Amino acid sequence: MIRNTVKRQLFTLFLTLTIGVSLYAQNTNKSKPIVIEDQGSFTVGGTVIKESGTFDPIKHGAFNPADQVSEGQTLHGDHAYVFYQVPKKAKKLPLVFWHGYGQYSKTWETTPDGREGFQNIFLRKKYPVYLIDQPRRGRAARSTVPGVISAKPDDQLWFGIFRLGTSSEFYPNVQFPKDPKALDQFFRQITPDTGPIDFEVNTEAISALFDKIGDGILVTHSHSGGQGWLTALKNSNIKGIVSYEPGSNFLFPEGNVPDPISYVGGTLRALEVPQEDFLRLTKIPIIIYYGDFIPTEPVENPGQEQWRAALSMAKLWRDAVNQAGGDVTLIHLPEIGIKGNTHFPFSDLNNLEIAELMAEWLKEKRLD
Amino acid sequence: MIRNTVKRQLFTLFLTLTIGVSLYAQNTNKSKPIVIEDQGSFTVGGTVIKESGTFDPIKHGAFNPADQVSEGQTLHGDHAYVFYQVPKKAKKLPLVFWHGYGQYSKTWETTPDGREGFQNIFLRKKYPVYLIDQPRRGRAARSTVPGVISAKPDDQLWFGIFRLGTSSEFYPNVQFPKDPKALDQFFRQITPDTGPIDFEVNTEAISALFDKIGDGILVTHSHSGGQGWLTALKNSNIKGIVSYEPGSNFLFPEGNVPDPISYVGGTLRALEVPQEDFLRLTKIPIIIYYGDFIPTEPVENPGQEQWRAALSMAKLWRDAVNQAGGDVTLIHLPEIGIKGNTHFPFSDLNNLEIAELMAEWLKEKRLD
Repeated sequence: MIRNTVKRQLFTLFLTLTIGVSLYAQNTNKSKPIVIEDQGSFTVGGTVIKESGTFDPIKHGAFNPADQVSEGQTLHGDHAYVFYQVPKKAKKLPLVFWHGYGQYSKTWETTPDGREGFQNIFLRKKYPVYLIDQPRRGRAARSTVPGVISAKPDDQLWFGIFRLGTSSEFYPNVQFPKDPKALDQFFRQITPDTGPIDFEVNTEAISALFDKIGDGILVTHSHSGGQGWLTALKNSNIKGIVSYEPGSNFLFPEGNVPDPISYVGGTLRALEVPQEDFLRLTKIPIIIYYGDFIPTEPVENPGQEQWRAALSMAKLWRDAVNQAGGDVTLIHLPEIGIKGNTHFPFSDLNNLEIAELMAEWLKEKRLD
Repeated sequence: MIRNTVKRQLFTLFLTLTIGVSLYAQNTNKSKPIVIEDQGSFTVGGTVIKESGTFDPIKHGAFNPADQVSEGQTLHGDHAYVFYQVPKKAKKLPLVFWHGYGQYSKTWETTPDGREGFQNIFLRKKYPVYLIDQPRRGRAARSTVPGVISAKPDDQLWFGIFRLGTSSEFYPNVQFPKDPKALDQFFRQITPDTGPIDFEVNTEAISALFDKIGDGILVTHSHSGGQGWLTALKNSNIKGIVSYEPGSNFLFPEGNVPDPISYVGGTLRALEVPQEDFLRLTKIPIIIYYGDFIPTEPVENPGQEQWRAALSMAKLWRDAVNQAGGDVTLIHLPEIGIKGNTHFPFSDLNNLEIAELMAEWLKEKRLD
């Protein structure tokens, strides 16, 4: 017990020193230009639907948004959109960043208070960076299935679920900037779906991306966490996964699925997959991070409860994959002394420290 | 007459030589890295709506997409989204690129066949580049007003209106790549509105952008053409406008509004503004470009007809602004020997030549 405590303290000291030195190096680098060898964008995956009949360019070719004729026409939709940048002297494996629920690629760009996000931070670390908008979201809004934008106000719901605080009150010492302009920008990162969320459509598109770019590392957030595991089942070009606060769809093998976890506001169920599929997740290194303000015991606030369930399930999942020979690390940030993080550690005030942790892990796993 | 012809031939020769030399320089530069001094993203403009009642974080704080309670909550929406890059040793005035109808910032990025678009081309020319997604489009999808995504197929409609050809048949010698993959990417650039198009919302957001960044040059395409003039009425930080194929909303002064122009499929009406507002458009240099396949006389194809009307109206507008002391240049590309361009000259096969024309004009107007 004492030995463990000493070991942990030494580890914390080591982390503090390494991160301290790196942060210093990084801060002095901040105004250095980024040299971009190549940058561009494309859509990937998706499908084509076609309306029956024949398109007549003379009869049907006039713009008439109120009552546009579709006869015989196609629609190309359900693709993902990708913006990529490759820095000079780039490392071999690109980082592919996938946003969470109600969010888009902005997640990884400039932070709500105008600091550099993971896009720039990891370009500076010489990683090729790919930012995704998943099908039916953001720039990949062209859906083959109709959708409704309700425009129903829900900022305060997300303020709670994203663990900035409760209602409009920040948690004490939360790593979120207190300038009201930052919160304004943060709320404007929320964006609606333009069609139903479809895991098959999404994972096919991201798998198609890895077919196109080859080996790479997938970085997921929240709702893309579960979809990330599903994509890794489809594509062995995914050589590692970094998952920030996965919230659902943890995959367990047939016959070994844990009981659902109830929480105030819902029930978190594991997803059953064939043993053979499950074992694919043991072939790549995976790291999971959770931030602060996640209770260990049931509380009355659903915004926190949801993450109590997720963290509990994630621990079961880590153990299941590791027992099958896998390499899953789960870091609950407050346990290593990093406190105050929201559901968005990569854009929180201490995001350089968070990035450093990820960079160290990539190095340790020889993914850099 | 003979003198004029000789002059025109000399001008064409001069253009060919300058462009030739520049293109050569540019092609040899193509693989040179782009040095980025600063890059990032933000939202700008927009509004906040609030539902009546009181948000209760315990009662209303659980995620329940099927029936989410909005009581007492806010929604931050109707902003524009902007991604910007500032190259090293940048010119003073940034280029602010605004997409057209049914499109988003992709318009200016990698072309459908994977060549560099105006984003990279003008970064290489040392311009700071700002790419907009207008409110209720792309990454700025968060609308304060409900919307419906119909997912009705309309690719062939746009194939016609964007003047690639008729139905699915390319125009002969059209400057569009014939690889089917390019057309697939092109169709995937189409994206729906997530709420009603609202000129007031859009022009306020883009004006707020110019408040934030200061002096700059606005580059518009198609539907943003008319909105671009309207934004220039609101914000004198717009120091010049480059407009590719503006299609509607040409502003004329009270009492001097031309007759509507009828075409197969619709009627193009000018927009009346107070004389005082109109005169603001005489204070900045403006250039307008139109591509090929625009008939001079009525034809039966609505996809072409719409542009016959637009080009006719644009000529009336140029004359009206210039007669009031303005500086509007209108280039119909085939008339200076540049043939085969679609509605998207900046991503057509000859887009380096198109960019060179724009760069020369900026230089001539001391906007570089």
